Amino acid sequence: MLNLSLLTDLYEFSMANGFQKDLPDTRATFDIFFRKVPDQGSFVITAGLQQITEELPFSFTADDIAYFRSLHLWDEEFLNFLATFKFDCHLRAIPEGTPVFPRESLMTVEGPIAQAQLLETLLLTILNHESLIATKARRMTFAAGNRPIMEFGARRAQGPQSAIYGARAAVIGGVASTSNVLAGKLFSIPVAGTMAHSWIEAYPDELTAFRQWAKYYPDNSALLVDTYDVLTSGIPNAITVFKELRAKGHEPVGIRIDSGDIASLARQARTMLDAAGFPKAKITISNALDENIIESLLHQGAPIDNFGVGEKLITSASAPVLSGVYKLAAIEQNGQLIPKIKISDSREKVTIPGQKQIYRLYHQGTHDAFADLIALADEDVVDQHHLDAFDSNPLSVSKVQKLTEFDAQPLLKPVDLKQTAVSPLEIQKFSKQCLAELPDETKRLTNPDTYHVYMTTKLAKMQDELINVN
Amino acid sequence: MLNLSLLTDLYEFSMANGFQKDLPDTRATFDIFFRKVPDQGSFVITAGLQQITEELPFSFTADDIAYFRSLHLWDEEFLNFLATFKFDCHLRAIPEGTPVFPRESLMTVEGPIAQAQLLETLLLTILNHESLIATKARRMTFAAGNRPIMEFGARRAQGPQSAIYGARAAVIGGVASTSNVLAGKLFSIPVAGTMAHSWIEAYPDELTAFRQWAKYYPDNSALLVDTYDVLTSGIPNAITVFKELRAKGHEPVGIRIDSGDIASLARQARTMLDAAGFPKAKITISNALDENIIESLLHQGAPIDNFGVGEKLITSASAPVLSGVYKLAAIEQNGQLIPKIKISDSREKVTIPGQKQIYRLYHQGTHDAFADLIALADEDVVDQHHLDAFDSNPLSVSKVQKLTEFDAQPLLKPVDLKQTAVSPLEIQKFSKQCLAELPDETKRLTNPDTYHVYMTTKLAKMQDELINVN
Repeated sequence: MLNLSLLTDLYEFSMANGFQKDLPDTRATFDIFFRKVPDQGSFVITAGLQQITEELPFSFTADDIAYFRSLHLWDEEFLNFLATFKFDCHLRAIPEGTPVFPRESLMTVEGPIAQAQLLETLLLTILNHESLIATKARRMTFAAGNRPIMEFGARRAQGPQSAIYGARAAVIGGVASTSNVLAGKLFSIPVAGTMAHSWIEAYPDELTAFRQWAKYYPDNSALLVDTYDVLTSGIPNAITVFKELRAKGHEPVGIRIDSGDIASLARQARTMLDAAGFPKAKITISNALDENIIESLLHQGAPIDNFGVGEKLITSASAPVLSGVYKLAAIEQNGQLIPKIKISDSREKVTIPGQKQIYRLYHQGTHDAFADLIALADEDVVDQHHLDAFDSNPLSVSKVQKLTEFDAQPLLKPVDLKQTAVSPLEIQKFSKQCLAELPDETKRLTNPDTYHVYMTTKLAKMQDELINVN
Repeated sequence: MLNLSLLTDLYEFSMANGFQKDLPDTRATFDIFFRKVPDQGSFVITAGLQQITEELPFSFTADDIAYFRSLHLWDEEFLNFLATFKFDCHLRAIPEGTPVFPRESLMTVEGPIAQAQLLETLLLTILNHESLIATKARRMTFAAGNRPIMEFGARRAQGPQSAIYGARAAVIGGVASTSNVLAGKLFSIPVAGTMAHSWIEAYPDELTAFRQWAKYYPDNSALLVDTYDVLTSGIPNAITVFKELRAKGHEPVGIRIDSGDIASLARQARTMLDAAGFPKAKITISNALDENIIESLLHQGAPIDNFGVGEKLITSASAPVLSGVYKLAAIEQNGQLIPKIKISDSREKVTIPGQKQIYRLYHQGTHDAFADLIALADEDVVDQHHLDAFDSNPLSVSKVQKLTEFDAQPLLKPVDLKQTAVSPLEIQKFSKQCLAELPDETKRLTNPDTYHVYMTTKLAKMQDELINVN
């Protein structure tokens, strides 16, 4: 793997240089959070923590230092710092697969301010990307109900690594398999796929191409039936080959349709396959699918067993950016913690100060989550079951909310950089458990109900005071 | 770097297995082309060839073979082929930075059919990504006129490698610099950047933060003025520090505005800076800019010197996918070349058969290109100056076009896998020369005029015959 320590915006180094000189003993806490959910959804599925643990701790090579020197921006004192610093940042993160809401810290970084500043770009790049794809995959798998989705977008991904980690994130978000062999090998996720049109075209005719496939893959023959004409050529030829397979003791897997009017073709294909004695042959659909098309096809009653999704998932094409940000929440000088805020003309962009913890609130004694709560890290929330709070949404009216009879679970956990990689399929399972705890109304694809994220009174007061001081 | 030989869709291996057994001596030619230009533009800027030459030739490690074996999909004969094949594919490509049009082969791959099939996914992933970003960068630099654009989208890119190669592609497409230090180091492209809001917030007040910056970067002080309030705090404080700098013999670089009503703030900032004696202090603008916003700001007469662009460029957010495809064009068996076609119900999706060459046609004796021409590779086009042709657009009416008094330049060149990397800035320069040759009407951002791509009569006839045979 390429060493990504240098995947940092130049200004992070310029700032680190100043911080290292002006504030050498200052420690800082940064929060990573987002304000808006892609596709007007209600939540994001976090992902990317594993890749971050693989890249940390970070350090610079002699070659890197030589490159810095060539930029003529910084003095030897700073270059020496970059060559020799001892990594001393502490990360806390909400585990991968958890549904998270706007303004909640997905991750916090506490450490010497210069070091912590240098981590901004890399952490955001990874978390923004993987969480974006996991979130899109969750939307698609929700639309598909219990039907498996296969991810096969590699060729349309924004570069090779985006294809690889995108496939991992897609599994976290719920897809069953990927076509991407490298992702399959690296992350032990199921790989799948059948044939492309080029297989059919390489033979004199479709029937010959199907027969040769069946010869090599008698137990894995899913045939692509739309190279010439689905109904007059593809399916009749597939049925011929399926009968030949059965005569030899093999059962066919099914067919794939990649073009045309899917709903109508799937219905006619089903009828033809059933009539020919293959009611168990599965129908797989692909062709620029997204959650809306999947929902619409199933709403029309199309008899589809599996979906293959490409570019709309691997790039989250309808909303290709998750805008996670990295904001200073506090600094520590001479043992004293000083909360920090970013003020803006736009009320929405004001940050939440202080070292914090995020809690999921459940109706007491149940697994039914009804809201989240942002508190200062030193507040006791778990032992309380009643609390006054304020909505953390800066666009909501600021009035006291009485939260009663709840159990609270902290979401931010310390990150062990040496943690063993967990299989994305395991994370998918965990994610499904978390989702089961959320209200159905907040999981709708369209117009989801707002899931409230509250702030404790103490935190709301701190924010208010800092707004008025600045 | 991660070995990307395995970045392949599973079905490529399954097909290669069959091809290796059924067509062991067959060679194939595949074309890479696209049908639609992102953002309703007229052309794509090609990019990605350099990364492809770094990944090729490809081969598999013993570890890869062990993984293949664990999938229980293929026999030992095929695994042995994968472990031992000698790379024998020949690539031709249109050089990076060239504007290319729909249906033109950006790249062709000729080689043993099993090997050539295995290259599909990796080649597409790289070309689709880098060409997409280069094309978006070209749109933005076109909108910005001669004002420099800095790329600083790393944190919103679709993963780390997407940020790195995206920065390279952005330079090919015309941006002047990147904030991405790793891209700067790897590709020798200029790096730039100033400070983030966290610099300001880390100090007791904005003036102190600006002063400390000026202390460390007296000749590189571009100050971010919107942390608190641009007009009442940021600019007055910047002017104070600029005067202090000048008193010490340094000239300030300028200011950056990252929020608020940019057109109005830039105008007022210009007035304040001029009045204070800093008419040369530059105004840099950022905040979710794309080509439309840049055009609109300049149309309003906003006095902007530089633009900083982030997520809208590094993800090509308004059109995040370039749908390049890899299609079989011909096979060679027993020394005979057999053209191949992919038929589809949709006229648009029918492919152009045969081994081909792409020509740019110029009015004779000039550098003014007026159309492109797709010909069979063995046709003599360069020595002709008059030709009958057909529009290659399958949606156009099929009638003979008389092309007269032209010079033709072939665009597809053999790829040397050992070629030395060319600096993206050099490629940018080449790209600008190519663009200067195109008609202005085809370079418009909105409603560009169609630039015609013709096919020779021989090629059109071949396509027609193959459509009617199938």
